[in-house]
Parts: sequence; structure tokens; C-alpha cells
Amino acid sequence: MSVTAAPGFVAAGCHAGIKRRKHDMALIATDDGRPVTAVGVFTQNRFVAPPVVLDRARLAASGGKAAAIVVNSGNANAGTGAKGMADAEAMSAAAAEALGIDKAHALVSSTGIIGTPLPMDVILPAIPKLAKKLSKAGGHDAAKGILTTDHVAKEAVVKGSTFTLGGMAKGCGMIAPNMATMLAYLTTDADVPRDALQRILRDAADHTFNTLNVDGATSTNDTVILLANGRAGAPNMQEFADAVHRVCEELTLQMAHDAEGMTKMVMLRVTGAASDAEARIAAKNIAENNLVKCSWYGSDPYWGRLLAAAGSAGIAFEAEASSVAYGGIAVSRGGIEIDHDRAAVATHMKNEKIELEVDVGAGGTGSARAIGIDLGPGYIKENSVTS
Amino acid sequence: MSVTAAPGFVAAGCHAGIKRRKHDMALIATDDGRPVTAVGVFTQNRFVAPPVVLDRARLAASGGKAAAIVVNSGNANAGTGAKGMADAEAMSAAAAEALGIDKAHALVSSTGIIGTPLPMDVILPAIPKLAKKLSKAGGHDAAKGILTTDHVAKEAVVKGSTFTLGGMAKGCGMIAPNMATMLAYLTTDADVPRDALQRILRDAADHTFNTLNVDGATSTNDTVILLANGRAGAPNMQEFADAVHRVCEELTLQMAHDAEGMTKMVMLRVTGAASDAEARIAAKNIAENNLVKCSWYGSDPYWGRLLAAAGSAGIAFEAEASSVAYGGIAVSRGGIEIDHDRAAVATHMKNEKIELEVDVGAGGTGSARAIGIDLGPGYIKENSVTS
Repeated sequence: MSVTAAPGFVAAGCHAGIKRRKHDMALIATDDGRPVTAVGVFTQNRFVAPPVVLDRARLAASGGKAAAIVVNSGNANAGTGAKGMADAEAMSAAAAEALGIDKAHALVSSTGIIGTPLPMDVILPAIPKLAKKLSKAGGHDAAKGILTTDHVAKEAVVKGSTFTLGGMAKGCGMIAPNMATMLAYLTTDADVPRDALQRILRDAADHTFNTLNVDGATSTNDTVILLANGRAGAPNMQEFADAVHRVCEELTLQMAHDAEGMTKMVMLRVTGAASDAEARIAAKNIAENNLVKCSWYGSDPYWGRLLAAAGSAGIAFEAEASSVAYGGIAVSRGGIEIDHDRAAVATHMKNEKIELEVDVGAGGTGSARAIGIDLGPGYIKENSVTS
Repeated sequence: MSVTAAPGFVAAGCHAGIKRRKHDMALIATDDGRPVTAVGVFTQNRFVAPPVVLDRARLAASGGKAAAIVVNSGNANAGTGAKGMADAEAMSAAAAEALGIDKAHALVSSTGIIGTPLPMDVILPAIPKLAKKLSKAGGHDAAKGILTTDHVAKEAVVKGSTFTLGGMAKGCGMIAPNMATMLAYLTTDADVPRDALQRILRDAADHTFNTLNVDGATSTNDTVILLANGRAGAPNMQEFADAVHRVCEELTLQMAHDAEGMTKMVMLRVTGAASDAEARIAAKNIAENNLVKCSWYGSDPYWGRLLAAAGSAGIAFEAEASSVAYGGIAVSRGGIEIDHDRAAVATHMKNEKIELEVDVGAGGTGSARAIGIDLGPGYIKENSVTS
């Protein structure tokens, strides 16, 4: 029940008619209609969708308070201009009216195709119906209502010593640092001041969602929102931060596992960089390299392509001091292949989850993680036609 | 006869045995063994292959003089460390001995797989045989000897009013700005000082080879070399620069046409950017975006993905002032879809060559071109296994 695991939160999902058959709307709300502390992390794309513009403005105006989030899938309400902005406002107003709350506290998300106006004729009538269905048990329906090309709902819960934290997410394509087409909603009964909550969420997103790179594409709609109602009192802050990290990590791994066309999930670690920032750049360059991604699809431990990708990342790189290991087995050192157990590497490459470590040889302590996804025919099939 | 079109140059190609059956070596030389003015443009990858290291050193030491270039395909001599450096030196020395020239004037290129030592046992014996076969007519054999996964040889000739300029190239994968796995060799009888020749070649490469983006991957071996023997005297410099540009452009289009798995070649123009540099960044971000590339494969005029790619390029971007046109037909303006002739756009998208224009709305005069290639199953098939 994920997003409704913490006391004080209810949710619902339904099929409104944006998609043909599957769930396409969700509503998350506080059970008493009262606004709670709310923080968000949003896309860095400059071609930003109206719902993201609206949420940023709402959170700024309210000083970080929200009582509900209404979400539709199947249509991103992006590339929709002034009409898109009015539609996002109308969704927020409809949710506020249905729940008897101030629209200043009603946030909105959309995800799906870009460039087509929202079908408001099916969205608006669905909102009061969703409001009537709100319940503890509705969390799973809500998790289904936010999906697009995802195959499964993504949910996670952590029970702390004094608090509960639950969350749900969607996302499987157009995913790259930072965030890309992914939505995630977390709720908790912990009492955490807004600034600390924002810092904890940003930090957790950087180390989890923002390490996932499905296709190098940054979306127009990315949104992560965390609602905290404070009923459980102030938590141990370290324990709470760890819990946020854990829920985000679990949702990230579920997204990686469900990535479009994915047959391999690659846990890539870059070390030996001049700084963590340079390590992140190298990790991104490797994880987005189509030749590298094709070699993962083919279970081919082609270390030369990894070094070629690292060497073209524009960071400090020294082949002479570099190394590459697959599944903990070093295959290259000093920029050349070394004797290694080929059978063991081949066995590791057959796994769905591949472990890869690249030392870029710059002699520093900079390191970073990226979760990469292979590039196979499934991704092309999924993305070569719109509908 | 391309690379031997200009008086004073001879060439040869052969099957040495690096590949199973196809031509895998080439030799280009001056017909009298005398060194001529030589300039080069090389990969910017920091994981650089030994032959590139050698050529840079040779050209610096000789003050821009060369009499021969020996090339092998099928193996990049990259990721080969000290042995790779010694092998490149040995190829240069063998060519010098076979031709009776100073090894300071014998350049070397390699292209193919990374991380495997060169099979010197088949390469060294082939070099004297190539030297004996050198002829005017050998240009086409040489053009075949440098190919890897290419399907066809790439050659171009321009006859100026006083000079002749010919060239050959290979390349169809691992191609992105700057250059990536591509080799190109140009020869001319024009008399052009080294500095001017270097400037003209660099400028031509920037506007032709460096606008081609097959897969966002920058190779370890990229090399473009231009030899000028001066026999035809000093040319009109503008005419000569135009000729270099034209030969490079023709070779670039031939490479785009032969790109791995290619079904669509996209002539992308970015306008309205704050500067040419920002336009180039946007063009690169669009041309490398896998969602955009998949939509090209699917003949889908999905303008929203183009703007999402431009908006995440980190450049000045204003959706409100942006526009997107396919085949000269505007489909989006101000970040939203506008009424347009869908049938005409659909017809244009069926072409192998698609024309695309994206105005990023920053209000500047910055513009850039990129040649993009679609992403279809053929690319994955080509790149998911090494051999």
C-alpha cells in the first residue's frame, strides 16, 4: 500500500479514459484535508511541462504545503502552451473542489506523450470520483494509475523506529540524470522541517533516481514529491534520511528492472577520478554510449569501448593507470587486456544484473555510480512509433 | 581513383590476412619517394591509439612532411599499450624500408577492434608487397583496404582550375563530433603552405566530418591527413579551400549513407541559438538522443522529443519562441503543435533523407548543422557482438 503506508494518507486510482483500458489517473491526499509539509525535486529540462511549472509555483507560494496531488498518465501535458497551463490549473482546482481544500494546496502531475492537449472531458469528471474512492487500500490502485509504458507498479515502504515512509514511482523510458520521465511520490508521518526535508529529498534523489540512465534523455515532466504530516513527531534525522534514501533506492531499482526493452541492468562504478563530479561525468558518458550499451545487450565484455567512452568524456583520464573489471574480475589494466578467467567473465555477463568497475586512472579519489541499461531491439520497438 | 587523382601520388590495397577475406591494408605514397607538405586532424579522445600518437609525433618532428601512409583495417591497435606503440613504429619502419624513404616521413593508421594486439606476422610481410603494387590505378584498391564495417568504398575528386584534389575515407560506426572512427586521406598537387593547409583542413573537417553523428561515440583512432606536393603551383586560396570542403562533404555524405544500421539520414539544422557554439551543442544533443533517433526510424514526426532534447542541452532555450519544421513544413511554433499538412509531412518522413529544422527560440543568430542517423535494429545487430 506504499504511498498510503504512513498514517494520515489516503489514495485512489482509476481508469478515466485517457488510455484505452489501463488505469490512467491517481489521487493522493491527506486523510483530513489539512495541508502538510511538502517538498519537491523537478526536471531540469528547459522545455518544461505546465504541471511542473504549476507545482513549483504552488510550493513556493504556500511555503511548502500541500494536501493533495492529482496525477494523470497517458498524456504529459507538455508542448501544450497556454492551454496546457490552463488545463493544469483546472485539474488543481477540480481536485481542490472535490476535496474541499484550498487549490493552493493541490499539486498536479502528468506523464505520457508530448505535444497533445489533455483530454479534459474525461479528466475533469474523474476527479470527484477519485476523491470519493480515497482510502488506505487505494495506494496500489494509485500506483497503477501513474504508469505509462511500465509493466509493473513500483512501490516501497520503510518502517522506522518512530515513523513510516512509503512511496510509489513510475518510469521506464526517457530516463537519464537528471531524473527524466519519472514520477515518484513519498509520504511519511515523521515531523521534519521543510528545509531539512528538501535537503534530504534532494540528496536521496541525487544518489538514487539521478544515477539511473535508461537512454540519456531528460524529460519534461520529472517530479518527486515528499509529503510529511508530522503525526509521529520528530524522527532521528539520520535514520529518517537513510529511510528516504532506501525507499528512493528501491523505487530506482524497480524502475531499472522495468526499463524499456531492458535485458541487462548494469551497476557501473567509476573510481580513480579527479573528483566525484568528474566520476559522474565519466559514468554518464559510459552509460549513454550506444556501442557500450549494445555490447551489454550482446553479453560482450568489450572493455575497450568502456575506456573509449571514458576517454572522450572530457575529464582527466590516464589509460596507463586505468583498469576495468566485470563482476569483480579485472580484464584490463594500464589500458591493455590482462590475463583473466574468461569463462568466469562470460558467466557473469549472462546475468541480468552486471557489475562493472572502471578506474579512469586519474589518481584521485573521485567515484560515482550509474545504473545503465542495455540497448536491444525492445527499446527500438517501444520507441519508434508514438502510439 | 580518388586518392591518386592528383599527379604525383600512387596507392595500393591488398588482403594481408587480418580479416578473413576482404581487403585489409592500404598504402599511399608520393610517386618519387620525396616528402611533401602534410597536415592532419586527429581524435580528441584521451584513450588514444598508438598510431595516432605516432603520427602526431612524426608530423611535429618533420615540420609537417610525409611521403607515405600505411593503413590497416580490422584491428585498431588501440588498448594495446607499449606493444601497440612498438607495432606502430614497426609498421612505419617497414613502409620506409620498402619505399627507400626516411621513416620520419612514413605515417601509420589503424582501424577496427580495440584491445587486441596487431597480427604483425601478417602485416609486416604485406608492406613490401604493397610497395611493389603502388600505382595510379591502385587508388580504388586502397580505398577498399581501409574499410571496416563499411559496405562501400568512399571516394571523391574535385578538379580545380589549376589543381586536382582527391580523397578517400572509411567510417560508419563510432562516429560523433569530433570525428570518431573515421579515417580520411586527401592528396593534391596544389602548393599551399603548411599553416594555411592545416587551417583549411581543420575548418573543412569542422563543417563536414565533425557534423556527422552516427552514435555519439568518439573513437580512439580518428585521422584525417592531407598531402600536398605543390607540383601545380599556388592555387587560388578560396577555390582551394572550397575544394577541400567539397571533397570532405562528399566523403561525409557517403559515410552517412553507409552508417551502421542506417535507414534514415537526417539533415538537422538548428537556428535561433545564442551562438553557433550553443547551436552545435543543441544539434549534438538532438542527434544523439535515442528517443529522437527511434522516432526517425519509425518515420514519426514527434516534434516534442526534439524540443525535449533541445531543452535539456543546457543552452539558452525558449519554448515560447521555438519552432520545428520537417521537410520545410512547420509543425510546431511557440512550443505547441500548429495546423499543418500532415500528409505532406508523412510523405517527407518516408524519404531516406529527412530535412529537419529546430529554432531553439533564444532569439540569437547562432546556427549549426548536424547529420543524424536513425536508430534501428540494424545498428544493434552490428554492435552487440564483437566478431
